[in-house]
Amino acid sequence: MWQVSDKIDNNFMEKKQTIVPLLESVKKAAGYINRREDGARASITAAIAQTLRDHIAGIIAANAADLAAMDKASPLYDRLQLTEGRILSIADAAAMVAALPDPVGKKLSSYTHPDGMRIEKITVPLGVVGAIYEARPNVTVDIAALCLRSGNAVVLKGGSDAHHSNTLLVRLMQKALTEHGLPQEVITLLPPDREVVGELLTATRYVDVLIPRGSQGLIDFVRKNATVPTIETGAGVCHTYVHEKADPEKAAAIVVNAKTQRPSVCNALDTILIDKAVAPDFLPRIIPGFLPFGVGIYADDTAYAILHREGYPFLHPATPDDYGHEYLSQNCSVKTVEGLTQALDHIALYSSRHSEAIVTEDAGTAETFLKEVDAAAVYHNASTRFTDGGEFGLGAELGISTQKLHARGPFALEKLVCEKWIVRGSGQVRR
Amino acid sequence: MWQVSDKIDNNFMEKKQTIVPLLESVKKAAGYINRREDGARASITAAIAQTLRDHIAGIIAANAADLAAMDKASPLYDRLQLTEGRILSIADAAAMVAALPDPVGKKLSSYTHPDGMRIEKITVPLGVVGAIYEARPNVTVDIAALCLRSGNAVVLKGGSDAHHSNTLLVRLMQKALTEHGLPQEVITLLPPDREVVGELLTATRYVDVLIPRGSQGLIDFVRKNATVPTIETGAGVCHTYVHEKADPEKAAAIVVNAKTQRPSVCNALDTILIDKAVAPDFLPRIIPGFLPFGVGIYADDTAYAILHREGYPFLHPATPDDYGHEYLSQNCSVKTVEGLTQALDHIALYSSRHSEAIVTEDAGTAETFLKEVDAAAVYHNASTRFTDGGEFGLGAELGISTQKLHARGPFALEKLVCEKWIVRGSGQVRR
Repeated sequence: MWQVSDKIDNNFMEKKQTIVPLLESVKKAAGYINRREDGARASITAAIAQTLRDHIAGIIAANAADLAAMDKASPLYDRLQLTEGRILSIADAAAMVAALPDPVGKKLSSYTHPDGMRIEKITVPLGVVGAIYEARPNVTVDIAALCLRSGNAVVLKGGSDAHHSNTLLVRLMQKALTEHGLPQEVITLLPPDREVVGELLTATRYVDVLIPRGSQGLIDFVRKNATVPTIETGAGVCHTYVHEKADPEKAAAIVVNAKTQRPSVCNALDTILIDKAVAPDFLPRIIPGFLPFGVGIYADDTAYAILHREGYPFLHPATPDDYGHEYLSQNCSVKTVEGLTQALDHIALYSSRHSEAIVTEDAGTAETFLKEVDAAAVYHNASTRFTDGGEFGLGAELGISTQKLHARGPFALEKLVCEKWIVRGSGQVRR
Repeated sequence: MWQVSDKIDNNFMEKKQTIVPLLESVKKAAGYINRREDGARASITAAIAQTLRDHIAGIIAANAADLAAMDKASPLYDRLQLTEGRILSIADAAAMVAALPDPVGKKLSSYTHPDGMRIEKITVPLGVVGAIYEARPNVTVDIAALCLRSGNAVVLKGGSDAHHSNTLLVRLMQKALTEHGLPQEVITLLPPDREVVGELLTATRYVDVLIPRGSQGLIDFVRKNATVPTIETGAGVCHTYVHEKADPEKAAAIVVNAKTQRPSVCNALDTILIDKAVAPDFLPRIIPGFLPFGVGIYADDTAYAILHREGYPFLHPATPDDYGHEYLSQNCSVKTVEGLTQALDHIALYSSRHSEAIVTEDAGTAETFLKEVDAAAVYHNASTRFTDGGEFGLGAELGISTQKLHARGPFALEKLVCEKWIVRGSGQVRR
């Protein structure tokens, strides 16, 4: 039985000055996992799931040490807490990752050079992935499982609030690694000190890709200071545009779902754009869906007048700051527009290029919207809440990329690889 | 007839304080090119080629103004100079880009959600590409043609030495744009002042991707200061490993070609690794190929003794700095090794992950090498000089990417796009 010891941090504290020796050993360990065959990687990922299931009591105990240091009234308390149910969910997620199709070794293209060489482009693991995150301890396992499954070593820098939990979770995963003949450094947790972040962000010799996951502040810090190539998983300022030819019932259902179903996530609705002509008919229809959640509406003059007439209780006049604002709560803004062009202009100005939707029964207008809007995911007659690796058929995800390189939208297992060109010749030289 | 005016820089100089208004207008212009159909983009790219051919005298005159300010003895003089032949080559390259297959609108995947939505992933233009380069004026047209062909607007920051040439080349390309009903800002040249670079590197609101192209110093500067996502086209420290089972004639031909055929480029050979057992037989065989070019060899003790015995005149003892060194000249280092494992270790330590080759008749050893070596391009029995967009069947390239995200190896037209998820529903909401 795996036990939490009181020496849980000692091995890190000694290395406080620099993480370079640690990163060197991760890079070396990466060689062992980078070239593992599909079956071995799947088995170890599945073994991680099982190991977690076998050590629920120990994980709860380690988690208790983190919880003891956290104010019970803090909104972070719940996010930090691991229950038996949550641990089983984490294990199930890892087991699902084990069952995903292998992203490594896919032939992307092949070409025969006029001189006779065969040139192939295939997918290979990235090498060493660095992850910086603040959030719940489940992220530790989610990211490690995805990296391991795709043949990558991973360096994890989690939040200090969760460090006891993270340390045990990583030790358990390392146990699964060593039992399968792999060095434990394939999954490495960094010390909780902030100072190590600077070293990680610039460790171009040891880390191939960085993934920041968390608040906008964290993302901005990484963007500003990283020299290692980074994939941002950023904020979502999401619009749903209700066109004058929208089916009003469909539109109301989509808007209410996009706003209320899980408002704390990045693909939730922030601003409703509504054609002026149909605003008086449409806006009252969202009230029954919004009322139970007390959705605060920040409305422009026209929308305010309509909703005020209906006696909507959570109504405020919109200020300029209410556009381009990610609420992450049961609040949204409403802006009335004079048709598609104004809606597109508003989205171009305020969108964070995450998820944008139009509701209309007019196919031509829908196609124009889908083509013109610059975002990771664009929707016709569906809720933006679907932007998610699982919903898009990719399995678990590391986050939603709002930048354009490498991965855009759900950043899932299939993108934890890079390309490699393989040239097989028989003595060819260039003329 | 297009004329060079003496006011060539005035429109930029007025904006010296900030390039934000310029970048805003580029972003706006990008909307016009991003959504152009394939045929239109191909025609305008072809029109650029024709416009250049029609204005050879004017280009030579503008170039003369740059040349007048350059020391004739400088090695940069030749790189800067545009002759009729060179201008025709630039135009031909643009015409070739016009004829390449469209990278936009490719369906990358499709998926039907259990609730019935159709989810497609397609390629779309990146938006606005920023290019920072020092080199010859041909780069101005090469990059602009590739960006335009793939539906992107481009912001060019060329070297100040070439600014008169660049200014006229951009004006001519803008003429082709406006004649096809596009805003000239689709191809925008920044002022030659160094100060604007800082603004460009952090213009995340206006620029989607940055491509630095030039010296290691430039790449490092961009890597350190950019917050816009960047694709590095970096240095090449390239090894060729001659295995004990190599065909010695083949090996000599490959090594001589990789070193001497064009030593100033990134895919040229820097270090020969040679199995100790066959070094006495192999090394003398490269002498006839190296002698005419006066190739300087920095050899370890074993190799030095062999080559010294042969009386090779350009021989030096290797120092540690001779490994991991990109020569970009008719020089190379030689290291003898005790077989594959030592060769792999040396490459892992010193490679810049650009292009690496093995020469052997043993298929198993070759496959191990191709699998184990972490590089953009790995070769069996061929010269590393083939790492090039054209040679790999991709057409023109922006450079060779030595990082792992988005594009690795030749960075060509096919990679000047990003992904977009399109979801078509009929009222679906998330449960």
